[in-house]
Amino acid sequence: MTLFWEDFKVGETIEMGCHTFTESEIIEFARQFDPQPFHLDEEAARASLFGGLIASGWHTGAMFIRMVVEHMTPVHATSGAMGFDDLKWIRPVRPGDVLSVESVIREKSESRSRPDRGTVKIESRISNQRGEVVMSLVSLVIYLRR
Amino acid sequence: MTLFWEDFKVGETIEMGCHTFTESEIIEFARQFDPQPFHLDEEAARASLFGGLIASGWHTGAMFIRMVVEHMTPVHATSGAMGFDDLKWIRPVRPGDVLSVESVIREKSESRSRPDRGTVKIESRISNQRGEVVMSLVSLVIYLRR
Repeated sequence: MTLFWEDFKVGETIEMGCHTFTESEIIEFARQFDPQPFHLDEEAARASLFGGLIASGWHTGAMFIRMVVEHMTPVHATSGAMGFDDLKWIRPVRPGDVLSVESVIREKSESRSRPDRGTVKIESRISNQRGEVVMSLVSLVIYLRR
Repeated sequence: MTLFWEDFKVGETIEMGCHTFTESEIIEFARQFDPQPFHLDEEAARASLFGGLIASGWHTGAMFIRMVVEHMTPVHATSGAMGFDDLKWIRPVRPGDVLSVESVIREKSESRSRPDRGTVKIESRISNQRGEVVMSLVSLVIYLRR
């Protein structure tokens, strides 16, 4: 089933996930993209502001989009994100943490210039296994209309 | 040389980069984190809104932080990002594109609760080899003070 712009209802909540962050994947992502000591090495991380190894915030973001895509496919065959507002990394993500995503549809608008599409504003919170929010963001996504 | 909060000057511009996005790394990132058809497969991408293979916006974000870390290390040994505002994916990033980063220091403030640190607000633009901005964002980063 492919979802279109019309299928999203303002106020609706969508739950997605979950994913367990392992120490080895935290370090592997950091080696590729964010080689800062507190993402790479437990001992160096203990001496940092964070007091221990934490995932790159961009790793949390990348796993967020994977959880969304896995849950929403094939929705996203007809969509594209324009960006987002107000992304916050609220708490560190540490090895063993299990993250899940809750998204709420906040606003919808039709495109003025392109009648075949519209935008959907989606607020998402990524939480850990203790129910603590670790990251939040508001996305603006384009969907095709029926 | 380790840089501290005091070393950043409001209005200062820092240039970083650059990185060439290859087709294989675009597809590899998408397989791991953002398996949407227009990031995975040239043929499927031609039928999408984007008309051809494009990098995941999160891939562009991950390469942005790598360019920053490679340029600024060991600055970041003493820092941590809190998040950002107003991230925009303005233009697609396609195979062969060469991206670079230009960051401007916009604001600084001392922490009220923790006198050993302060925040720096940094506006960054990621541009391609034609000088077109493909992504922009405003980051809020914590730095230790001297």
